[in-house]
Amino acid sequence: MSEVNFRGVFPYLVSPIHASGEVDGEVLARLCEDLIGAGVQGLTPLGSTGEFAYLSWAQRRRVVEVVVEAARGRVPVVAGVASTTIADATAQAREFERLGCSGILAILEAYFPLSDEGVFAYFRAIAEAVSLPVVLYTNPQFQRSDLSLPVIERLSRIPNIRYIKDASFNTGRLLSIINRVEGRLEVFAASAHVPVCVMMIGGVGWMAGPACVAPRQSVELYELCRRGDWAAAMERQRPLWNLNLAFAKYNLAACIKGGLQLQGYAVGDPLPPQAPLPPEGVEELRRALVAIGAL
Amino acid sequence: MSEVNFRGVFPYLVSPIHASGEVDGEVLARLCEDLIGAGVQGLTPLGSTGEFAYLSWAQRRRVVEVVVEAARGRVPVVAGVASTTIADATAQAREFERLGCSGILAILEAYFPLSDEGVFAYFRAIAEAVSLPVVLYTNPQFQRSDLSLPVIERLSRIPNIRYIKDASFNTGRLLSIINRVEGRLEVFAASAHVPVCVMMIGGVGWMAGPACVAPRQSVELYELCRRGDWAAAMERQRPLWNLNLAFAKYNLAACIKGGLQLQGYAVGDPLPPQAPLPPEGVEELRRALVAIGAL
Amino acid sequence: MSEVNFRGVFPYLVSPIHASGEVDGEVLARLCEDLIGAGVQGLTPLGSTGEFAYLSWAQRRRVVEVVVEAARGRVPVVAGVASTTIADATAQAREFERLGCSGILAILEAYFPLSDEGVFAYFRAIAEAVSLPVVLYTNPQFQRSDLSLPVIERLSRIPNIRYIKDASFNTGRLLSIINRVEGRLEVFAASAHVPVCVMMIGGVGWMAGPACVAPRQSVELYELCRRGDWAAAMERQRPLWNLNLAFAKYNLAACIKGGLQLQGYAVGDPLPPQAPLPPEGVEELRRALVAIGAL
Amino acid sequence: MSEVNFRGVFPYLVSPIHASGEVDGEVLARLCEDLIGAGVQGLTPLGSTGEFAYLSWAQRRRVVEVVVEAARGRVPVVAGVASTTIADATAQAREFERLGCSGILAILEAYFPLSDEGVFAYFRAIAEAVSLPVVLYTNPQFQRSDLSLPVIERLSRIPNIRYIKDASFNTGRLLSIINRVEGRLEVFAASAHVPVCVMMIGGVGWMAGPACVAPRQSVELYELCRRGDWAAAMERQRPLWNLNLAFAKYNLAACIKGGLQLQGYAVGDPLPPQAPLPPEGVEELRRALVAIGAL
Repeated sequence: MSEVNFRGVFPYLVSPIHASGEVDGEVLARLCEDLIGAGVQGLTPLGSTGEFAYLSWAQRRRVVEVVVEAARGRVPVVAGVASTTIADATAQAREFERLGCSGILAILEAYFPLSDEGVFAYFRAIAEAVSLPVVLYTNPQFQRSDLSLPVIERLSRIPNIRYIKDASFNTGRLLSIINRVEGRLEVFAASAHVPVCVMMIGGVGWMAGPACVAPRQSVELYELCRRGDWAAAMERQRPLWNLNLAFAKYNLAACIKGGLQLQGYAVGDPLPPQAPLPPEGVEELRRALVAIGAL
Repeated sequence: MSEVNFRGVFPYLVSPIHASGEVDGEVLARLCEDLIGAGVQGLTPLGSTGEFAYLSWAQRRRVVEVVVEAARGRVPVVAGVASTTIADATAQAREFERLGCSGILAILEAYFPLSDEGVFAYFRAIAEAVSLPVVLYTNPQFQRSDLSLPVIERLSRIPNIRYIKDASFNTGRLLSIINRVEGRLEVFAASAHVPVCVMMIGGVGWMAGPACVAPRQSVELYELCRRGDWAAAMERQRPLWNLNLAFAKYNLAACIKGGLQLQGYAVGDPLPPQAPLPPEGVEELRRALVAIGAL
Repeated sequence: MSEVNFRGVFPYLVSPIHASGEVDGEVLARLCEDLIGAGVQGLTPLGSTGEFAYLSWAQRRRVVEVVVEAARGRVPVVAGVASTTIADATAQAREFERLGCSGILAILEAYFPLSDEGVFAYFRAIAEAVSLPVVLYTNPQFQRSDLSLPVIERLSRIPNIRYIKDASFNTGRLLSIINRVEGRLEVFAASAHVPVCVMMIGGVGWMAGPACVAPRQSVELYELCRRGDWAAAMERQRPLWNLNLAFAKYNLAACIKGGLQLQGYAVGDPLPPQAPLPPEGVEELRRALVAIGAL
Repeated sequence: MSEVNFRGVFPYLVSPIHASGEVDGEVLARLCEDLIGAGVQGLTPLGSTGEFAYLSWAQRRRVVEVVVEAARGRVPVVAGVASTTIADATAQAREFERLGCSGILAILEAYFPLSDEGVFAYFRAIAEAVSLPVVLYTNPQFQRSDLSLPVIERLSRIPNIRYIKDASFNTGRLLSIINRVEGRLEVFAASAHVPVCVMMIGGVGWMAGPACVAPRQSVELYELCRRGDWAAAMERQRPLWNLNLAFAKYNLAACIKGGLQLQGYAVGDPLPPQAPLPPEGVEELRRALVAIGAL
């Protein structure tokens, strides 16, 4: 599986947690099954939408275990590793490899600002801890340390660092990265970018929460882009974008969990003190989902 | 001329100023002539690149006068009106109409934060002061007040507010605007967006400083986009983007003035205490211009 | 007058402007007279509260002329010079010296970011343009370029740069400045600092909008600090601070103009599109003024 | 012990960790012993300086255990509880009470923005989980959610929420809090405030990293403030402030660990990928410590 190239739509999975703190493996497995049935090319547990920042290590580990089992090798599972320390991040990554993941989504948490050298050391250590392909994750909105272009270039020279997922709003930055890494990294978009634009400038897919509630529509959009049928792609893109807009307005996890509940998945609410999606958000989401035929 | 639809490449012109404070009308007129010769679809004096924030009213007025005369009606001149007060902004706009401009680029300056109501009042007053089409200008990076989606929607219902130029990095925001205003406004990109992406999602052109030093290449790119030849467009876009990267790294006015000097225009440096483009910037720019055949 | 040391309470004056755009010299002169009567140690036209960023040069010049005439040499007038260019700033400063000001409050406006070298050049040029003492003005909240400690130290070695007015919220920064400039600059607080704290660490007074509506109370507080009667000073400070809180919540100019209207000065509203103080702000202000005996 | 009022100097302790990941209980206990010997009024493990954001739960628990044992009831131990979820935070707080702490320093971590309601719910839940006095911790620089004045007021009405430690730079905000909570909360300063200023406006002490390396000097300063000997206090404050300046310039944990190493405590470096204090930082620190007689 690790030879596979990651391509296409990788939904960020939510993490359904019982009030007791236990992971709800049943609903999570059913969601994975349905997403694979809808044609998604991969699964990404423990992204932002997966509330990695709100889960204990035991919960994180269990989420990955459930997803790997549910995927049964049909699509790659790329699990989020996130920490403030190298020691903890590499331990997480090794365990996820042992559990059967196909790739690692490497996320840096920071409390004090880090120098470029520290950022580089963190991601290199994760890559060296596993034999899996690594996806760099950069999210200037929620993280205290961002990956600069020079650090991205240095990291791109580490053999198993093969992808980057950029969650900024800055689509031009993706083209700058693509120009700079000369093919050593491939680029995934996130929900703040217009997927058609990212595919146009050379991206290979997107990792994003909204694909959880609109998997079929996302995959169709991806296929149109891949075939270079840009006019048809833009026709699909336009109404799909309203979904991303709704997501941007609310807490990501609250939104996707709210949307999945509308679709009949008992995934619960985000962990307290986060609030559930408010009624006006549910309404906005319902309209967006109905408009694209996802409800 | 005011019946014309604005479309295509509108370079942001620099403002060459003699040490005495006088506008250098000769070099500015020659630049306009050459840009028109290269096929640009319009001219925009007094954008950010034109150092509007550094010029006196007498200098601004003279810049516009020179550009209108140089254009001789061959392409529309869309002049930047910028102020903190309604009284001053409307006086500027009226005078630019009297001087023969084809449109107004409406820029809001602010010192104290403004409510949406104040933002709306400012732009409406400019639109009502003239009979020309108005381009809304939004630049979250340099301005203290940004135009929210609800304000943009309200402004789009004023008949002669017909365009918006968005200078954020957020290409998705452009699609949100396009979805929201339902054709009442047309969208121009700025240099922080990838032009091909903006054309793909429905934009009608770009207003940007880099077009001053790469007018022919910009116009060719625009024509490829307009014909829907996206693969060829992206081939052109990729090296052109390095030019935008260089511009983003330095003071915009210093960069464009530096680039024009490399091309033989004695436009001088930005007004003190702004610094001229440093030697490494000149070198970076030279390489970017040579790579696209603009030097 | 230029030999005088600036000390004590310098109210930031509002700029009353008729609907026609003319400065209301009568009400401004009466305000100056009353402030001097209340014991203030100086007058500062054209600070933030004076809406310098909203006035034309003709209006600014007239405001200063009125204030100098009204002061009749009884207290120093320290007028705000603010520009983006050295050429304009030095012209303003020279004219204010010619009009009879006792000092210059030097404010840097910027559109593009400036290097430390550019910041230094701007302030040095103003100091060299006049023979008056210069007050450096630093306001990280509203200005795009801030003065770093190294730049402040370099500027402190220019003979007629003698004071600094810091409008950050960071009182510790004032102590850092005081430690660093070793007496070459003296420090004035602004309305975001607690005056008693600034006096305690070595400040010599404050330049602030609230002193316009509470001049007598401000002067009493200053005298208690100067005598080292800190316990009594804190007793006065506590209710006075609620006034500063109210000011921080609303547009500064709207607040002070609103407060002065409550006190019977027909100073009008801030220039459109700025909004007048909303009703709840008027009420909050009224309560704060009544509580300290200023209404 | 829980009846005691917290007052005075509470050093934020560093967390010495062996390369194996084990807490170095010996050096930590010796540091506690020496700080108590120097007269500090309390000990606070697991603040920012204590790298709470970089430690596993097992490490955090062990740090607190060591400190409680070392204190032997002579001074109160106020341990930092920090989490993104209510479930985890309350579990931490209960365990720290069981271990014998005298108070809880309640820190909110967040990934997605939180509403005031969520912030309130988090701190209330911690207070209700224990019978100990709770210190609210607010640090706008490193945390994604800040405590607004209305939330602070609501929290101040919960009986065992008795203190607030504010780590902003905004000393005026402390006076606003003091005015607002009318004695229901008492205020501790952090290293970004000038302690003398905070004591002057009504604070009861400070919780700060620098006190770890300058305990005797900090306690002397506190005593002068408590006696109202402000002139002598300011004489001590001035050179002590340079220590805070040095700390603000570098990673807090790196600084305090670096300073303690200079004083002979083998506390090691901050956890990777954080960098140790660079040589110029060591030099700056050495000078600051020598100047106040702490080396």
